[in-house]
Amino acid sequence: MPATSMEELVSLCKRRGFIFQGSEIYGGLQGFYDYGPLGVELKNNIKAAWWRSNVYERDDMEGLDASIIMHRQVLRHSGHEATFSDPMVDNKKTNKRYRLDHLVKDQKADVVAKVAEGIGADAGNFPAVIAALNANPAQASEALRAAGVRDPFSGEVGEWTEPKPFNMMFKTTIGPVADDDSYGYLRPETAQGIFTNFKNVVDSTSRRLPFGIAQIGKAFRNEITPRNFIFRVRELEQMEIEFFCAPGTDEEWHQHWLDKRLAWWEAQGVPRSKIEILDVPKEDLAHYSKRTYDLMYDYPTLGHEEIEGIANRSDYDLGSHTKNQADLGLVAKVDENLDSIAKLTIPHPDTNKPVVPFVIEPSAGVDRALLAVLSEAFTKETLDNGNERIVLKLKPHLAPIKVAVIPLARNKPELVDLARRIKSELQGLGLGRILLEDSGNIGKAYRRHDEVGTPYCVTVDFDTVGKGEDAALTDTVTVRDRDTLAQERVKIADLSAHLQGKLR
Amino acid sequence: MPATSMEELVSLCKRRGFIFQGSEIYGGLQGFYDYGPLGVELKNNIKAAWWRSNVYERDDMEGLDASIIMHRQVLRHSGHEATFSDPMVDNKKTNKRYRLDHLVKDQKADVVAKVAEGIGADAGNFPAVIAALNANPAQASEALRAAGVRDPFSGEVGEWTEPKPFNMMFKTTIGPVADDDSYGYLRPETAQGIFTNFKNVVDSTSRRLPFGIAQIGKAFRNEITPRNFIFRVRELEQMEIEFFCAPGTDEEWHQHWLDKRLAWWEAQGVPRSKIEILDVPKEDLAHYSKRTYDLMYDYPTLGHEEIEGIANRSDYDLGSHTKNQADLGLVAKVDENLDSIAKLTIPHPDTNKPVVPFVIEPSAGVDRALLAVLSEAFTKETLDNGNERIVLKLKPHLAPIKVAVIPLARNKPELVDLARRIKSELQGLGLGRILLEDSGNIGKAYRRHDEVGTPYCVTVDFDTVGKGEDAALTDTVTVRDRDTLAQERVKIADLSAHLQGKLR
Repeated sequence: MPATSMEELVSLCKRRGFIFQGSEIYGGLQGFYDYGPLGVELKNNIKAAWWRSNVYERDDMEGLDASIIMHRQVLRHSGHEATFSDPMVDNKKTNKRYRLDHLVKDQKADVVAKVAEGIGADAGNFPAVIAALNANPAQASEALRAAGVRDPFSGEVGEWTEPKPFNMMFKTTIGPVADDDSYGYLRPETAQGIFTNFKNVVDSTSRRLPFGIAQIGKAFRNEITPRNFIFRVRELEQMEIEFFCAPGTDEEWHQHWLDKRLAWWEAQGVPRSKIEILDVPKEDLAHYSKRTYDLMYDYPTLGHEEIEGIANRSDYDLGSHTKNQADLGLVAKVDENLDSIAKLTIPHPDTNKPVVPFVIEPSAGVDRALLAVLSEAFTKETLDNGNERIVLKLKPHLAPIKVAVIPLARNKPELVDLARRIKSELQGLGLGRILLEDSGNIGKAYRRHDEVGTPYCVTVDFDTVGKGEDAALTDTVTVRDRDTLAQERVKIADLSAHLQGKLR
Repeated sequence: MPATSMEELVSLCKRRGFIFQGSEIYGGLQGFYDYGPLGVELKNNIKAAWWRSNVYERDDMEGLDASIIMHRQVLRHSGHEATFSDPMVDNKKTNKRYRLDHLVKDQKADVVAKVAEGIGADAGNFPAVIAALNANPAQASEALRAAGVRDPFSGEVGEWTEPKPFNMMFKTTIGPVADDDSYGYLRPETAQGIFTNFKNVVDSTSRRLPFGIAQIGKAFRNEITPRNFIFRVRELEQMEIEFFCAPGTDEEWHQHWLDKRLAWWEAQGVPRSKIEILDVPKEDLAHYSKRTYDLMYDYPTLGHEEIEGIANRSDYDLGSHTKNQADLGLVAKVDENLDSIAKLTIPHPDTNKPVVPFVIEPSAGVDRALLAVLSEAFTKETLDNGNERIVLKLKPHLAPIKVAVIPLARNKPELVDLARRIKSELQGLGLGRILLEDSGNIGKAYRRHDEVGTPYCVTVDFDTVGKGEDAALTDTVTVRDRDTLAQERVKIADLSAHLQGKLR
């Protein structure tokens, strides 16, 4: 049974070294998290599984790793300077600032109903309420006040300003002179690095349509109200694909990627039954999007929230970043670009004439993936002896530690040395992290490795070194299975093959 | 023979898709680079080799992945706010700004000699010349002018200001309100995320001394004059270890890490003979450093430049970030810290009393490593037939593509389909990227894969499918060795084992 609350996940993550609050010893920094010894392995394993599936196992994909800080022209022509913003309101009494939709969502149902009434929107359609508030800023502040919208900080009804857009990009000065020209942005998505390198990738690989470019990396969003642990953060990591195809083939590829991505989530232990596909209604789509599927995973406590978006972005992105836009017969409505020095076209596979390809974009969050994987793996079980245990039933390829090798006693050099040799041999198989666990308390070690999802524990005991009661057990170890709790004796000589068979 | 100039490396990197200028289609952003399809694989392979050697293959190391944006208190108490700066001078005539040491270094020898004379320093000791200019800012600007120091931009003698310190950290506003309290820094080194998580890691893993924490990640430095391709950039990636040990054992561990790191470089193809160990003179050490070894690799064009620093940082870092400093008997001189909420001690292994451990820090740059690995691998050969070839003799574990599977003709479905099946089977071995190369020109494909360092090419031809001249060759493929150029016929059924033996 998966996790039932976010709280139990947060607690496990801190206790076992998966995730810590960023800059914690100085009181923490809201919306920033640090991945601890197990978190970094789990995150790397998720990223490797994505890269393997989307780059290595395909014949139509290239990888990329672009820089985080980008030229302001990139984010201007991508549309982010103008539109990557959230409406926010201030409470004049407390000087606190909130994202409008978050503020309203956190009010009691009757307050939300009154807000809807005050602004003339249907209370049952939350996005419509927010849209109405934004469309009528002058009435919005009165509607919030009249409905009795409370400030979460003070708990009292606020004196709310009109909603104003707030751009969520982090900006920074580049070079020694701080003037109007000398700034750049921390990318709000990895995607733009792919579009700006489209020509470089085509020229250096000779790719023809259809093909994609995949990238994993950090992105930064100055969220007004970061929340829900690692779900909505200011520093995040993304796994994005931009798949380029001929206009007219885009709908087929869109479906292809929807199927592929659902299968991938299933293979990571996030079952199809826990994901709702939201076919985003036409009226909610960005102007350049032809169609978008949002994959909504049923998180504990949060409910259905986006874990991946798969968008048909038409020819908007390359069309926005290319020079000579007027000559290219673009379908999307793009703003004029007199800054780009590159023509972002590729020969059409049928006609061989230059064309700006359509783009299908499957875009997933690493942190959100990790949270979903943890939620699904988290299990509380009552054992036959009545004891309760917490076990992370992670897929073996995602487990932070593949095998823990445990000498039964930490003060017996012959056990510890042998355990170290076995660890070293298993490590050489290239399966991932193998841990020498010499805490000296076997019960505690098993509990710990259940909780962090280690698929197998290998115990070196006195029988192993021929000093136990059963001479037949010499040169054998105990292999304990995380999920079944079954323990079997395996010859040391067979151990590598035994575990390789189970783990590869 | 390794590369003889930076130019030939830059050219190869661009042509073959290793590295592109960041934000290139908008004129580029100085000091930022994007890693292309082959660059991302090479970089990931270097990082994986480092992680394997320093985390997986040891029993005294934990990993970490902390956030890039950090609380300003972290960078204040680390000393970066006060001291992470370079002196710079402006030319009043052109309004151009330069890093003082870079400006002087780029002048002709006689000009440098005159600067030294003007400021009363020994011309043979360049660091002493710069130090003297900084120590006497009032005289410095006159010394630069009198010596005829030219502005690289205009080529004319400049009217130079006094040297002024310039802090190299990128700063950004966090949250919706831009006031004096609402900013953070992009970390200038990954190290600080390790120190601030010291207690979290100890608490969640029960580690005792000695042990280390390893981290790979981006760091940002607002260099005044980024230069030398990916050698001195504004966005870089680091591989850092902070190894914590009991005071008194630090010198032994320092030597241990020097030996270990040299061996690691050798295993990546960067030989001991190309690295000079600079035992940094006492007078050049930062006040907290007990001793530092700089590993200076002999880069083409640049000469000996730092590829890794291995520092004994005493108890300065944890001592700076801990509360209750006065009670802890610190050796290092630290500034008062009234902001930290954590006591950063651990039981001393002998006495069990709380102690602030000493730190050994091996700190390497990923980008500089990649540049060194490329330099060493780059080879121009004259073949027996008189032709010249460029080949990247990368260690197989670093090669971006492990095997290229090449159908002899791209328009023969039976060849292409079989090649695809072989590629898919080899991919399943988990060796790294296997490429289906169906450009249809075998000679061009071999040349390309020599240049990008692919250790083996597998060719599927008409003999393979039983349509060639020699029936005995049915179900065999040609395996071509990058370095020896030897070609052998291997049965498809034996191919996985054959290549696995060579590549693992």
